[in-house]
Amino acid sequence: MIKVAIIGYGNLGRGVERAIKQNQDMVLVGIFTRRAPETVETEGGQAFTMDQLKSKKNEIDVCILCGGSATDLPTQTPEWTHLFNTIDSFDTHAKIPEHFAKVDQVAKENQTTSIISTGWDPGLFSLNRLYAQSILPDGETNTFWGKGVSQGHSDALRRIDGVVDAVQYTIPNNEVIEKLKAGETLQLTTRDKHFRECFVVLEDERDSQRIREEIISMPNYFADYDTEVHFISQAELNQNHKAMPHGGTVLHTGTTHENTKQVIEYKLQLESNPEFTASVLVAYARACVRLAKEKQFGAYTVLDIAPKYLSDRTDEELRKELL
Amino acid sequence: MIKVAIIGYGNLGRGVERAIKQNQDMVLVGIFTRRAPETVETEGGQAFTMDQLKSKKNEIDVCILCGGSATDLPTQTPEWTHLFNTIDSFDTHAKIPEHFAKVDQVAKENQTTSIISTGWDPGLFSLNRLYAQSILPDGETNTFWGKGVSQGHSDALRRIDGVVDAVQYTIPNNEVIEKLKAGETLQLTTRDKHFRECFVVLEDERDSQRIREEIISMPNYFADYDTEVHFISQAELNQNHKAMPHGGTVLHTGTTHENTKQVIEYKLQLESNPEFTASVLVAYARACVRLAKEKQFGAYTVLDIAPKYLSDRTDEELRKELL
Repeated sequence: MIKVAIIGYGNLGRGVERAIKQNQDMVLVGIFTRRAPETVETEGGQAFTMDQLKSKKNEIDVCILCGGSATDLPTQTPEWTHLFNTIDSFDTHAKIPEHFAKVDQVAKENQTTSIISTGWDPGLFSLNRLYAQSILPDGETNTFWGKGVSQGHSDALRRIDGVVDAVQYTIPNNEVIEKLKAGETLQLTTRDKHFRECFVVLEDERDSQRIREEIISMPNYFADYDTEVHFISQAELNQNHKAMPHGGTVLHTGTTHENTKQVIEYKLQLESNPEFTASVLVAYARACVRLAKEKQFGAYTVLDIAPKYLSDRTDEELRKELL
Repeated sequence: MIKVAIIGYGNLGRGVERAIKQNQDMVLVGIFTRRAPETVETEGGQAFTMDQLKSKKNEIDVCILCGGSATDLPTQTPEWTHLFNTIDSFDTHAKIPEHFAKVDQVAKENQTTSIISTGWDPGLFSLNRLYAQSILPDGETNTFWGKGVSQGHSDALRRIDGVVDAVQYTIPNNEVIEKLKAGETLQLTTRDKHFRECFVVLEDERDSQRIREEIISMPNYFADYDTEVHFISQAELNQNHKAMPHGGTVLHTGTTHENTKQVIEYKLQLESNPEFTASVLVAYARACVRLAKEKQFGAYTVLDIAPKYLSDRTDEELRKELL
């Protein structure tokens, strides 16, 4: 049995707890949290303080780090990789090389194994970009996200003065996707690829005009997109917009000889983004433990891991059942 | 530069010749064929007899074997793996374990590396079944093929007495695919998943009734399917049905907690099946040479190969550009 610890218990940590139950070769050792353990309502797992983690070193094969990329993971992953094999979902794109280097050094010095930036993007989408671009080098990759809730954009809405609560959906332009799949060559701008739809609860309805203007002109987040804004009540937001669906498509359109068109499409439709991400983390936790057993120490990403390491089946079974 | 030899020059071999030109780190050493080299019309590559292959041992990094699975590859792959790193597209499902064992032994004894059963199914579809099943163990995988030409079924038609020529299309039931993607749980029979459409040229039109009966009742090939048969002229067959499009979908529908539905879909739409298969072989040829340089000798399948080995970019570039 692979003995797993969960570090941090938000939506992702809860998803990991649920995913471990679906994997018969895994057992949860405990949930380690900054909150007072007795206040944490788990789904059966025992909660401990962060301070108790060190003392359980011999009971844990791998720690799944479920904190955020902004402030938790940049320090937590290197810190815990001193003692444990670790997995994280670090997704601040520009800082991945730096994070990788830091974790790699700690892991090599301490003979541990860490897989960073796991999940679906970065993660499974990265894998699919790599496979598609390697197979059809004469081609173009486009990634479309959604329909799904973007936490970053929802947070940006909630920071606006006069906004009580808000949810933002990223919506892919399916017309563009179909045109690309049909072999059309398009010059795509940011505005062409995605729409943004906002559901906003106001403190005072009289602010609606000002707030709508503020949203659609917000640089980086909304100004480059066609954005629709709906003002709704908190009750409606709670009832209809608190689920966390997401998904997206990696579309690679290439040509082989002359103009022979070949299309590779990888698509996810997720009713729960955190639960799916958690499932990816758990599969890579298995790979992490197997790599560590083979003394393959250091930092890795999904691009470095042979697919078979994700499965609990033997190589013989995989060849027989999946090829 | 990676120096590549092509062994066998049918549609697949020609596709490999074309794909090598799209990869700037590769060069074609030669095309080795059982035919008289002077009779082979290549697209620029030099043709040699099979006998000349041995003498070029020091000029070749990897041999891409482009023969058929029925009679060529079961003997060719073990034979050439004595001297060379090799790639094949062996696709007789039931015999893959035996083929793997044979090639593995030769490769380990002779310190060579071989990647067998490469292509899209087996190959990329196998990979996607493995990733999806590892991430969502509580789920179900369905593979749909087409719309595309099945060589095996077309051959079966051509063996019927009174048939001059024929092409068979495998057509996926898109209605079923959409239902599965929408989260429906279906008990699917063979007949539900695919249709078969046949275009047949007759020696004598008066045989049409007998031949239609013979086709739709043919065990293994057509009896379990809804099959449509069209009788057409050789001229029409040549004009409209000699392209080799194919494709398909690996659809994995799973649940995480309780009944939260998650859908993973991998879809190929190929205007040329042999050229796409060739492109997969060429990407894995790169992986093969890199594994051999690391002295990782023996037989491998796509399931054993870390994705990064397929790319000509460095690990740093891949992390920066794809994660």
